[in-house]
Amino acid sequence: MEPGLGVGLGVGLGRAGAAPGLKAAFSSAHIPTEQLELAASYVSDAQYNRNIHFETSSQAIRLHKIYNHWAAQRVIYLFVLVDLLLALFEEPAVYLLPIWVSVLVCLLTFVGRLAHFSKIIPTKVFWRDAKNICLIITIMLTLIDMTVYWAVVITGHDTVRWSRVLRPLFCVNFTESRQLRRAFRNIRHTLPEILSVFVLFMFSVAVFSLMALKLFEKRNLTTDKGAPYFTNYLDIFFELYVLVTTANSPDVMMPAYNVSWGYSIFFIVYIIINTYTFMSVFLAVVYNNYKKHLKNEVRKLVFMKHRKMVEAFNLLKVQHGSEFIILEADWSQLVRIVAPEIPSAHRALLWRVCDEDQKGYVGQEAFIQLADLLNIQVVQMKERIHPLEVRMPSIYTSAVSQFIRRMVKHRGFRYMYDFIIVVNTIFICGDEANPYISEAEWVFLTLYLIEIMLKLYTYEPRVYFAKNQFWNWYDTIIVLAALLGTVINTALKSANGYSNQQILDIVFILRILRTVRIIDSFYRFRILLNTLLNLLPTMLTYAMLTIVYYTFAIIGMEAFKGRIRFYGSNSSDPAANYCGNPALKGTQFAADGYCKNNFNNIIHSFILLVELTVVNQWHNILFDIKYKKKICIDDTKLETRLKFKIASIRYKTVDTLLQHMFEAELKPKDQLPTLEEIEEFSPDDMVPQRPTFYSVA
Amino acid sequence: MEPGLGVGLGVGLGRAGAAPGLKAAFSSAHIPTEQLELAASYVSDAQYNRNIHFETSSQAIRLHKIYNHWAAQRVIYLFVLVDLLLALFEEPAVYLLPIWVSVLVCLLTFVGRLAHFSKIIPTKVFWRDAKNICLIITIMLTLIDMTVYWAVVITGHDTVRWSRVLRPLFCVNFTESRQLRRAFRNIRHTLPEILSVFVLFMFSVAVFSLMALKLFEKRNLTTDKGAPYFTNYLDIFFELYVLVTTANSPDVMMPAYNVSWGYSIFFIVYIIINTYTFMSVFLAVVYNNYKKHLKNEVRKLVFMKHRKMVEAFNLLKVQHGSEFIILEADWSQLVRIVAPEIPSAHRALLWRVCDEDQKGYVGQEAFIQLADLLNIQVVQMKERIHPLEVRMPSIYTSAVSQFIRRMVKHRGFRYMYDFIIVVNTIFICGDEANPYISEAEWVFLTLYLIEIMLKLYTYEPRVYFAKNQFWNWYDTIIVLAALLGTVINTALKSANGYSNQQILDIVFILRILRTVRIIDSFYRFRILLNTLLNLLPTMLTYAMLTIVYYTFAIIGMEAFKGRIRFYGSNSSDPAANYCGNPALKGTQFAADGYCKNNFNNIIHSFILLVELTVVNQWHNILFDIKYKKKICIDDTKLETRLKFKIASIRYKTVDTLLQHMFEAELKPKDQLPTLEEIEEFSPDDMVPQRPTFYSVA
Repeated sequence: MEPGLGVGLGVGLGRAGAAPGLKAAFSSAHIPTEQLELAASYVSDAQYNRNIHFETSSQAIRLHKIYNHWAAQRVIYLFVLVDLLLALFEEPAVYLLPIWVSVLVCLLTFVGRLAHFSKIIPTKVFWRDAKNICLIITIMLTLIDMTVYWAVVITGHDTVRWSRVLRPLFCVNFTESRQLRRAFRNIRHTLPEILSVFVLFMFSVAVFSLMALKLFEKRNLTTDKGAPYFTNYLDIFFELYVLVTTANSPDVMMPAYNVSWGYSIFFIVYIIINTYTFMSVFLAVVYNNYKKHLKNEVRKLVFMKHRKMVEAFNLLKVQHGSEFIILEADWSQLVRIVAPEIPSAHRALLWRVCDEDQKGYVGQEAFIQLADLLNIQVVQMKERIHPLEVRMPSIYTSAVSQFIRRMVKHRGFRYMYDFIIVVNTIFICGDEANPYISEAEWVFLTLYLIEIMLKLYTYEPRVYFAKNQFWNWYDTIIVLAALLGTVINTALKSANGYSNQQILDIVFILRILRTVRIIDSFYRFRILLNTLLNLLPTMLTYAMLTIVYYTFAIIGMEAFKGRIRFYGSNSSDPAANYCGNPALKGTQFAADGYCKNNFNNIIHSFILLVELTVVNQWHNILFDIKYKKKICIDDTKLETRLKFKIASIRYKTVDTLLQHMFEAELKPKDQLPTLEEIEEFSPDDMVPQRPTFYSVA
Repeated sequence: MEPGLGVGLGVGLGRAGAAPGLKAAFSSAHIPTEQLELAASYVSDAQYNRNIHFETSSQAIRLHKIYNHWAAQRVIYLFVLVDLLLALFEEPAVYLLPIWVSVLVCLLTFVGRLAHFSKIIPTKVFWRDAKNICLIITIMLTLIDMTVYWAVVITGHDTVRWSRVLRPLFCVNFTESRQLRRAFRNIRHTLPEILSVFVLFMFSVAVFSLMALKLFEKRNLTTDKGAPYFTNYLDIFFELYVLVTTANSPDVMMPAYNVSWGYSIFFIVYIIINTYTFMSVFLAVVYNNYKKHLKNEVRKLVFMKHRKMVEAFNLLKVQHGSEFIILEADWSQLVRIVAPEIPSAHRALLWRVCDEDQKGYVGQEAFIQLADLLNIQVVQMKERIHPLEVRMPSIYTSAVSQFIRRMVKHRGFRYMYDFIIVVNTIFICGDEANPYISEAEWVFLTLYLIEIMLKLYTYEPRVYFAKNQFWNWYDTIIVLAALLGTVINTALKSANGYSNQQILDIVFILRILRTVRIIDSFYRFRILLNTLLNLLPTMLTYAMLTIVYYTFAIIGMEAFKGRIRFYGSNSSDPAANYCGNPALKGTQFAADGYCKNNFNNIIHSFILLVELTVVNQWHNILFDIKYKKKICIDDTKLETRLKFKIASIRYKTVDTLLQHMFEAELKPKDQLPTLEEIEEFSPDDMVPQRPTFYSVA
């Protein structure tokens, strides 16, 4: 880059004249394509917040581009998903299929992806990254497990496919969802800091258990079921621990309360201290630490982005007077490489934003904005002409047609359809067996179809089906699906003489969902719903955390499969009363009819884990597991029980309330804070002013 | 105030000379006592954040001082408490006492207080204050009710004492706890803003109920108990509403899940949308609005304080050059009137803080700080001489005494007692019947007493029992109470031959509480506990909100008293199986042995309401009420049920998690934000920048 060239350019050049002048002086030809490609890689990484320390050789840059191509990523996502879904078809299976060979295919893809990645970055960096090490070890362990399993099964024995537990690691370490990893990292960082609160909490439960033991031990009280009440320390500890989650309230108190109301004070004080105070402290500590860590993460991210943009700038800069600049031609070529899908009109617009003063070049600061500018979606607001107007203008602009279009745009049209929805709801509430009501369904379907067609006639289809038109999409999909379902159902009915219940169920639900659209007519509800829809992506990221359910489900299946059996709802088999396991005779679990809450396949396991997350009755579900274990493998009992407890506590506290609430505070697009926002972070955010327990604990 | 006087004073006067010079120039005698008293009233109001718009006549100022005297306030608190506690002795009573005349005494006191207040403030202001109107109406209603009740009871009929429901209003409107009123006001302001979320939430539940009806109506499913499953829309609505609080999970799902796992998707989607998403949105909206309102309240408070201090300043100011000032003599006299309990050394210190440059006078800005300065508690750090050293110096300073004191101060002494506590805990866990263990109790008691005495010997008693020495107080009280209990118990045992169970219970608990002190030996736990103790006052304010429990308890008692009876835990009366109410035969309520969960007296009512707050099983407790009502008064049924629901939801959501968490964010002394903090509130706090749904909804 010849720095001398720029010096001669006068400052006196007029604004309008400056741009062509500069263009003439520096042809962009002097920047080699290789350098441009490298700069484009930096900008692209900055745009998508990727932190890949790739090598600068031209081959590595090419591989880097392929590596980040959406198709390559999709293939990996697909195989990760296939690997996870294999649990449906493996023993204990929902549908047993001999497809374990497909694990090999998945592993091969993963190895290929890793090899590809190793070509991009320096070998040293590759081996220092915990993600890669973790993946290689996981792949190797899976291979070993498969070999051992195959060998053991061949010899006719039974063994445990323990490597399946590791499958979620592929999801966490392979996918490009940095947010998921960040969420995990955040939780990992927060955990040690709540440890001291947790220990104090357990100490408190232990002290209260001791008090309960001393108070009730000698009283010979019995529970409702006639069992001795509060006589064993560990049982008391467990009962009081369950009380923290309020799952056994008020039953645990009743025997003591029946003796004297004074004892209820003990339980009330316990609940106030352990359920309300400690849980609040947990929440406060988690919230504060989580916020702190997230802020640090974001700050780091912005710093990395900034550095990458500076690198790109340094590759393309030329000297102009005392400052370094990038010329419009170079800039334009760069953007064309980074984002070939951007039309030239949009590119010109971006340039005008960068080069505010129309000087024909940009400085470093304006250039750095580019990473954020590329992420802005430009919505074309220009009036599109309706295709019908293009095809047959005479009909479309006729008086009748114009009247129809004005009518559809009138708000009376909306009110009319709101009224139709209300009437439809009344019909839905009626009895389906009534022929008038089932016939009316056709009328409503027709009315809705007419509405959609009228709207498509009035509005330009691409505008009607724009990305942000949630309710138009909703309407169309629901109505078309209902139409399809109703037609299929009628066809089946006339063919076989009876309806298919599954299809009927779906049609019923679609009909009811159709009426939900009425929300859109109320301004406040519309705003609320739009906010919720905007929050959806961030909420989904945290919903991805349910990937740990998979691990728990696999562990549960390996440990408990087949121990509880469900005999159908109307089974006359006497074993149905105790779920086929004599150890469950007379337990609350069997009495409540929880036989289907088992680990017999991955779907049942997931539903069971969701039930545990919802917390109520979790102690009964666990008790059962305890009893089951007692007769089988006794040493892992406590550990497993603990795992479930931790899972249920964590989900109850962290996930549901806090994170969503916290996310609600962030902007919908929290990935991209601007430089101004970063500057708003005071140094105090890093080092708390006062050494409160939030910073110490 | 002769403004001319100050002009002659030169700026050239030296610092040291200025103060006496000024003092000589203005004698404070020129400020009339009346004006000083008025200024003192303003400052006192500012100090305690009172907003009383009192008259400036000297009589009103005197009455104002009496009105705010702590003794006058304590008397009112006492009578409010007496009025509330009357519920213990009125029908349905815990101990029936014919003391309803005392209501009259309470009312008289309240009228007196109101009359007193009306003398202080202008008549127009008095009648414009909603608090006063509310109090007068409540007093009149109570009188009317008492007359009617008396008349009806005399004629031999039975009636309802409905005015008891209004008693909490005295607590809210009389007490000086502005925080309580502020908390209520905040909740009142927040409620309308969450209304739209609530309506949308109910709409969502209604839609899901309709889906459930259509899905399961025709299936002829039965629950675990053989009852028809999901056939009536209102029942489904109630069941799904209960599911939001997770109280009937997973039972409500089991019949459908037993048919097909596909139906569990319906319930999981329902829980995700209604329990997790909507509850998070509720929390976010409440949190945001509550924070906004509280900020406004604090801002208003600071503004009022500022204005009062300016008023006081204007009363005392004299002109000095171009500015107005207050002289040290006037300032000193003012502080002596406002806070006569402050020793002169402390007052001199306050003056030095106000008059940083030792000019002998303060300007307006420095004067305004005074209200905050007066609230700062100055802890005297000076080394106090041990009283024993004063009385008998020769013994106290002898070599043996010094050795003992050094020993006590050594950390080995603390470790030793930590070890003793651990050993004691082991003994406590042992069986009480063992004579060695019961004898060992005396050894431990003696050891603890020796510890306290040694510490009192080593440390100055006033330092040992300083306000912030929580653990010293804790130790002493617990050990002395345990000693007293053990002695009484031993005396009773040797007299009657058997122990008193109540005293034994207390002694047991005291013993266990003694071991809790070990927490103090761990740095992290100590910090955590100190934070919790600092938060206690703010948490207690919100705990005061439980005053609404009183209203619910009274309503419950009037509506349901005597409908459920508890026959003792081992009753052989067949009616005990259905709590003495034939309507309860075969209900879950009776089967769970919940007979004591009734409204038969105020204590039972409170415990029942706490159980409802804790949520689990609340639907069973309510079902019972529903059944009871069904045979009694049918029209109020839904309303009452609704009230309980609202109470339980509100407490679950707002109180326990959010407010504590929010309080944890405030400083422990949140009543007194400094001016700097107020200046930190940006105007954006008032007008949100972006019209998100938090500001609109």
